[in-house]
Amino acid sequence: MEHDVVDTLISPEGRLEVLSKSEVVKLLDTSQGGLYQVFRNCALAVLNCGSSIDDGKELLERYKSFDISIVQRERGIKLEIKGAPAIAFVDGKMIKGIHEHLFAVLRDIIFTSSEITDNPNFDLTRTEGITDAVFHIMRNANVLQPQRNPNLVVCWGGHSINRVEYNYSKEVGYQLGLRDLDICTGCGPGAMKGPMKGATIGHAKQRRSTGRYLGISEPGIIAAESPNPIVNDLVIMPDIEKRLEAFVRTGHGIIVFPGGAGTAEEILYVLGILLHPDNADMPFPLIFTGPETSREYFAQIDDFIGQTLGEEAQKRYKIIVDDPEMVAREMQTGIKEVREYRKSRSDAYYFNWLLRIDPEFQRPFRPTHENMRNLSLHKNQEKHQLAANLRRAFSGVVAGNVKDEGIRAIEKFGHFEIHGDPAIMGPMDALLTSFVEQSRMKLPGKAYVPCYRIVQ
Amino acid sequence: MEHDVVDTLISPEGRLEVLSKSEVVKLLDTSQGGLYQVFRNCALAVLNCGSSIDDGKELLERYKSFDISIVQRERGIKLEIKGAPAIAFVDGKMIKGIHEHLFAVLRDIIFTSSEITDNPNFDLTRTEGITDAVFHIMRNANVLQPQRNPNLVVCWGGHSINRVEYNYSKEVGYQLGLRDLDICTGCGPGAMKGPMKGATIGHAKQRRSTGRYLGISEPGIIAAESPNPIVNDLVIMPDIEKRLEAFVRTGHGIIVFPGGAGTAEEILYVLGILLHPDNADMPFPLIFTGPETSREYFAQIDDFIGQTLGEEAQKRYKIIVDDPEMVAREMQTGIKEVREYRKSRSDAYYFNWLLRIDPEFQRPFRPTHENMRNLSLHKNQEKHQLAANLRRAFSGVVAGNVKDEGIRAIEKFGHFEIHGDPAIMGPMDALLTSFVEQSRMKLPGKAYVPCYRIVQ
Amino acid sequence: MEHDVVDTLISPEGRLEVLSKSEVVKLLDTSQGGLYQVFRNCALAVLNCGSSIDDGKELLERYKSFDISIVQRERGIKLEIKGAPAIAFVDGKMIKGIHEHLFAVLRDIIFTSSEITDNPNFDLTRTEGITDAVFHIMRNANVLQPQRNPNLVVCWGGHSINRVEYNYSKEVGYQLGLRDLDICTGCGPGAMKGPMKGATIGHAKQRRSTGRYLGISEPGIIAAESPNPIVNDLVIMPDIEKRLEAFVRTGHGIIVFPGGAGTAEEILYVLGILLHPDNADMPFPLIFTGPETSREYFAQIDDFIGQTLGEEAQKRYKIIVDDPEMVAREMQTGIKEVREYRKSRSDAYYFNWLLRIDPEFQRPFRPTHENMRNLSLHKNQEKHQLAANLRRAFSGVVAGNVKDEGIRAIEKFGHFEIHGDPAIMGPMDALLTSFVEQSRMKLPGKAYVPCYRIVQ
Amino acid sequence: MEHDVVDTLISPEGRLEVLSKSEVVKLLDTSQGGLYQVFRNCALAVLNCGSSIDDGKELLERYKSFDISIVQRERGIKLEIKGAPAIAFVDGKMIKGIHEHLFAVLRDIIFTSSEITDNPNFDLTRTEGITDAVFHIMRNANVLQPQRNPNLVVCWGGHSINRVEYNYSKEVGYQLGLRDLDICTGCGPGAMKGPMKGATIGHAKQRRSTGRYLGISEPGIIAAESPNPIVNDLVIMPDIEKRLEAFVRTGHGIIVFPGGAGTAEEILYVLGILLHPDNADMPFPLIFTGPETSREYFAQIDDFIGQTLGEEAQKRYKIIVDDPEMVAREMQTGIKEVREYRKSRSDAYYFNWLLRIDPEFQRPFRPTHENMRNLSLHKNQEKHQLAANLRRAFSGVVAGNVKDEGIRAIEKFGHFEIHGDPAIMGPMDALLTSFVEQSRMKLPGKAYVPCYRIVQ
Repeated sequence: MEHDVVDTLISPEGRLEVLSKSEVVKLLDTSQGGLYQVFRNCALAVLNCGSSIDDGKELLERYKSFDISIVQRERGIKLEIKGAPAIAFVDGKMIKGIHEHLFAVLRDIIFTSSEITDNPNFDLTRTEGITDAVFHIMRNANVLQPQRNPNLVVCWGGHSINRVEYNYSKEVGYQLGLRDLDICTGCGPGAMKGPMKGATIGHAKQRRSTGRYLGISEPGIIAAESPNPIVNDLVIMPDIEKRLEAFVRTGHGIIVFPGGAGTAEEILYVLGILLHPDNADMPFPLIFTGPETSREYFAQIDDFIGQTLGEEAQKRYKIIVDDPEMVAREMQTGIKEVREYRKSRSDAYYFNWLLRIDPEFQRPFRPTHENMRNLSLHKNQEKHQLAANLRRAFSGVVAGNVKDEGIRAIEKFGHFEIHGDPAIMGPMDALLTSFVEQSRMKLPGKAYVPCYRIVQ
Repeated sequence: MEHDVVDTLISPEGRLEVLSKSEVVKLLDTSQGGLYQVFRNCALAVLNCGSSIDDGKELLERYKSFDISIVQRERGIKLEIKGAPAIAFVDGKMIKGIHEHLFAVLRDIIFTSSEITDNPNFDLTRTEGITDAVFHIMRNANVLQPQRNPNLVVCWGGHSINRVEYNYSKEVGYQLGLRDLDICTGCGPGAMKGPMKGATIGHAKQRRSTGRYLGISEPGIIAAESPNPIVNDLVIMPDIEKRLEAFVRTGHGIIVFPGGAGTAEEILYVLGILLHPDNADMPFPLIFTGPETSREYFAQIDDFIGQTLGEEAQKRYKIIVDDPEMVAREMQTGIKEVREYRKSRSDAYYFNWLLRIDPEFQRPFRPTHENMRNLSLHKNQEKHQLAANLRRAFSGVVAGNVKDEGIRAIEKFGHFEIHGDPAIMGPMDALLTSFVEQSRMKLPGKAYVPCYRIVQ
Repeated sequence: MEHDVVDTLISPEGRLEVLSKSEVVKLLDTSQGGLYQVFRNCALAVLNCGSSIDDGKELLERYKSFDISIVQRERGIKLEIKGAPAIAFVDGKMIKGIHEHLFAVLRDIIFTSSEITDNPNFDLTRTEGITDAVFHIMRNANVLQPQRNPNLVVCWGGHSINRVEYNYSKEVGYQLGLRDLDICTGCGPGAMKGPMKGATIGHAKQRRSTGRYLGISEPGIIAAESPNPIVNDLVIMPDIEKRLEAFVRTGHGIIVFPGGAGTAEEILYVLGILLHPDNADMPFPLIFTGPETSREYFAQIDDFIGQTLGEEAQKRYKIIVDDPEMVAREMQTGIKEVREYRKSRSDAYYFNWLLRIDPEFQRPFRPTHENMRNLSLHKNQEKHQLAANLRRAFSGVVAGNVKDEGIRAIEKFGHFEIHGDPAIMGPMDALLTSFVEQSRMKLPGKAYVPCYRIVQ
Repeated sequence: MEHDVVDTLISPEGRLEVLSKSEVVKLLDTSQGGLYQVFRNCALAVLNCGSSIDDGKELLERYKSFDISIVQRERGIKLEIKGAPAIAFVDGKMIKGIHEHLFAVLRDIIFTSSEITDNPNFDLTRTEGITDAVFHIMRNANVLQPQRNPNLVVCWGGHSINRVEYNYSKEVGYQLGLRDLDICTGCGPGAMKGPMKGATIGHAKQRRSTGRYLGISEPGIIAAESPNPIVNDLVIMPDIEKRLEAFVRTGHGIIVFPGGAGTAEEILYVLGILLHPDNADMPFPLIFTGPETSREYFAQIDDFIGQTLGEEAQKRYKIIVDDPEMVAREMQTGIKEVREYRKSRSDAYYFNWLLRIDPEFQRPFRPTHENMRNLSLHKNQEKHQLAANLRRAFSGVVAGNVKDEGIRAIEKFGHFEIHGDPAIMGPMDALLTSFVEQSRMKLPGKAYVPCYRIVQ
């Protein structure tokens, strides 16, 4: 099958266009240590936005001839692009939002490489060093804006949801937008796009021209969840753990829509953190919501959390079924408490320094077959530890489902094997099975072949 | 049935807040010659936006206690509002877009009264005087913007359309928005709202922060078709004829979606003008479009035009079924021709001075029972004359359906009677009957009782 | 003597460019009732800015071939200019500030003609009607800005002052600018330019990018006092009386620098108004100031006021010699009182509606030989009446000195004769004589020949 | 003598307010390796702007109790300031321009410390590494703006010049401003302030609201040449050599007004670079100018250059006496050539990458008594080498005159001794002697005691 492609030359706008000579050299360097490969792959993902593909490997194979390079000009740099997916263009002209995303990718990849990775100022083996790195990447991307009041709502949920759920997520976004709340998601389609579309209409009615649609991604997932062009602040974090930390430190509350393994990973991440004793008093609005048809789904999730992390974890969220206005009002109320809390402690509105994140949640987890097999999934550990390990298990499933590297590993070595305590593995198996049944693992179109096996 | 209401005090933003003492006096004057009544009724219509009501009379009766008055303060005027429909508010705060509309209403009512109606500079009995008045009202509303390239697409169509047609109109708006085209409609729900919503998303993706959503209304219709808050430039023309002239002089092309009597009136208006020999060479993109399900509908319209105005009229429009991208591309091409034409003649991009409009289309038509009965609906006249009279017939039907004054007249005197040539009345009867059958006359909910009778 | 001239074609920016067909016709109409002559003469004055000429007649004769006309284009109008003074251009390109002034002239002349002069809504025989006209012209020029706090300082004083006085006026402007106060003057050189230059530097240091430099002129005086290009809001009032009313209704305080007959006219105008019993309680900061060398000058003025209007008048101003900082601080304090006063009475910050102006100060005074001879200059009348008549006497002297019409009348009929009570004529003679001695009547260069004769 | 001081708490605006925890710690660290001392001293210099003091040591001693510290708040950081010079305030409120400068100082000191000094990405022993560091500091300060056309004129000249020269520098600035040219200086009074004031008026007349007044300083000189508040882009480079490199890489042309040792240093620096064979073809407008009274001064400079660097060096500049318009026009023409040159080579407009700067001009020179004694000042070397050494000699004189460290060294060890070839030392002695006679070494007020001795 042929896919239409376009060649073009584009200029950036704003501060980005100013690269030093050595930065350009790094970006053009195709050797092992160079940045070219990661830049090319992220750029391709950004350009593929809107296409119904959530398979990192397939994307790379489909556009093999795609090439992007940097050209120095008297007014700064330009990008020369060959073989780009035609879907990024309208009548031959690249959609402006996508255009911006390309330069955001460039900015973050350069910054992370020059200022974070090689800089002794950041000790990435320590929790403070990691948080500092997250802070610097976000600041460099200009998303830490001190003049704003807390109003950033993180929306999580599946990229593969049905029409009713999608429309519901739009309606929630609309109600948030009417209340001048902004949206942050992980990019991608489904529950990550609906709230932004809805908020766009809400903001238009409220004449909120400064509405933010913040997308936070990372090189491994972006191919499967390419940012939709409404996103007007895109940040590429270096890995999934820093991406998750960016969500909880910059967002002021979280709404979870129905989803699959990735959504479960996110739920376990945030609950694991909130269960840390140091965070016991910190307000953090967390709402699970969906249309009437998803009532059963959230009952399952709630049940799984109850059985694994217990009642204390269940107290940190509210489940609201089929009431977008109430969701928006609850979120607004919760964010007011966040504001009071920060103000009383002189903690920044734009970055939650006070939130304690255990190193277990910060250390990058590579979902190799061995690492997956060795996860400690038993009750004989603290709750937030267990949450950390469960989070890793679901993270591995996401990788096996949609990430280029993960898919290749599964093709080579077969299923991931996940061992553990039957009291945990039972509910986990049930949950994953229900995700499969409800087509929440992958975009519809092909039958889903599980990448994991629960071994009790 | 009780309807929730809210009291509030609001301040304007921008130039509007500066009223002279005598202007305030006029607005507070409830006597016959005063402006209070028309201001109050338009304000109520604006506040009722989003409600599913298209009956001017019912609206006024529902909010009898509604009151709006002007308060002078050191920073300009404020509006004190009592008994406003709760639907205009989010958690007790008025939606910003509606807030702006109230002041737009104020601006246009004052301006029309002080500078047009009583000013000997405007001879409203002559065609040049009427056009000049339309120009001045539009200029005062700051909608004639010389720095913009032609890009304003007028979207006409029914306020009562089904879901499939509505979604189609959104999709067309989205494709227009992606091409940096702006939208102008007559306000109201249905085909007048869909394209704006779609364009909002398209503009967001293209980072078009200056996108225009121009709504043109008039005091008689606004209660039935209250502007949705996305409209960011609202103009209230004094009557339906000046409103129609505003559409064709400021828009650069017209798209017609499925609709009822009002849509037919608009089609006859624009065709009547384009049939004038002086306009024969003027480019004016005119596209009829809808989803697959409306194919038959447009065949009927096309047939009615063919039978009454003939082939020449049929040449002035294109019918495109179920292809939003093609609609957008055709419109873009058509507007490019408009630009060339104006440029070559030094005619303004923001106001089509060269378009010849016959006085028949400018003179206000009052749809009394007598005037309706006396319409000349026969083939023994020039085509653009016949179009003018057919336009009046449909205009009367609209008034009888949704306008306060019209509804009261029908209640008092019974049906309008429409006479004429069987070769015309036949197709007209067929067309109106099909509108009734397809629920295009009024919003669904009640059975439609026709306000007219065709007498052949 | 040859004067360099330039031909050019310029486009406006902003709302102005949108003229109706009939407005263009009026402006091109060179007949008696047409606007061409007044537009041409004001335009020429604006273009002559910076030249050392203060003689309206001489200017018109020097640039006889000057011509300006309006051209309609697809993006609005352009001005075609022939034989313009080269001083308005830098390397062949018109200075932007002057460019703006041309369109301000156009705007005000059209507006006054279409909306004021011929509009029955304004009864210019009544005090309310005149004030309403002043209000509408100012509003149309967009200078009534409700969001601003009171901060507009009117600076009056001579166009012909010496270097020391000029530098002092700059220093006062600088201190006002450092305190975020804006400047309003009558345009022209000398004391009307110095404060604006000083404030520009003060505003730059305070990053006040929205600083206002409001110039208020009228067709008779503009040739002698052409606006310097720093003026970023220029308004052309129809006559000297409306210009003076504009000063006192929009300014929040007045500083008077040394000057000649025009300055005396302004002092008598404002004191005459403040002496009206209705204005007795109204705060209105009024400061006379100059460098050490002008100490004697202000003593003379103070003396003249004491002898003619008495002690009560002397109480309404402060004289501050050689202390720019104190002037600025006093003005700031005075304006705070103005703000409190308006706030407590809900009177607009941007227009002093509460100030009572007697019709004597509003009615245009034509300084013909007969009118000058018949002025009632005796003590047997109320103080504010006497002030009104004294104001007219000085107004006549200004006309005879610098206005085209006045100079021609003097050339034809000889001196104005000014009669009156010796107790008034004595001090007046002394004052005028001192103006002559101090070269305050006209710009230096030629010996001053008085245009008046005091007849006691 | 007592000096008025003020205590205050100020908040930043813009991106700056966002500091990480570790950055705050560094700034509060008063230990040897901490940043507190340099931050405090630069902050004090910025606050002392406008005072007539050019002695770094005296300043520090005068405000011994001055203290500045950082406070973290929910909207970002604030600065708590104690004992600040009252001259920075107007009625107790800090002048906005000075306020901005404090945060610019903060920004540059943090950035240089975190991202340059300790970062292995910058090899400061190599010419590319130094240039890269200059680039990164400038970029971080947001002064490299790719959308601008070349228009930045560097103005050099003495901080201690007489009134006639000062007014002349204003007039040149005014003519540059009228031509939309921007100004860059080394901050400080005299020839570094005049052109900015003049350009401010020129820009106001041209409505150039985006006019740039770029000041480039370094911690050693800032106390003697504190930035005047018109400067709206302030950058603190780490040392004098990087400051000089910043001038020649970001400016598009240079104007030299009369001055003393510092001006001679700057002239030798730029001529030394332009004499490098690699730069032979590069256009670089360089104009020496002053009023009629400075004709002799420039003859001396020209003579000194002729005798030491020869005719080739003399070809790189033009001397224009007493003609501000011609200076501005020549500069505009020169900058057009710069633009063509860069465009044809795709070199950035905002950073002159192509200019070859020999390491001799980049390596920091510490003017110790020993280093001064050992300078190679003979003709037996390449011209640009000789220029480099002469530059160092004058740099040492500047340090001994006005820098804290230099003054203390002279107090301790006596005169710097400068040896060399008589054919060079003769003209140098003559030049320095004439600077002393013309009071160009220090601000007037005290008799100048030379800090050097020429030993032939």
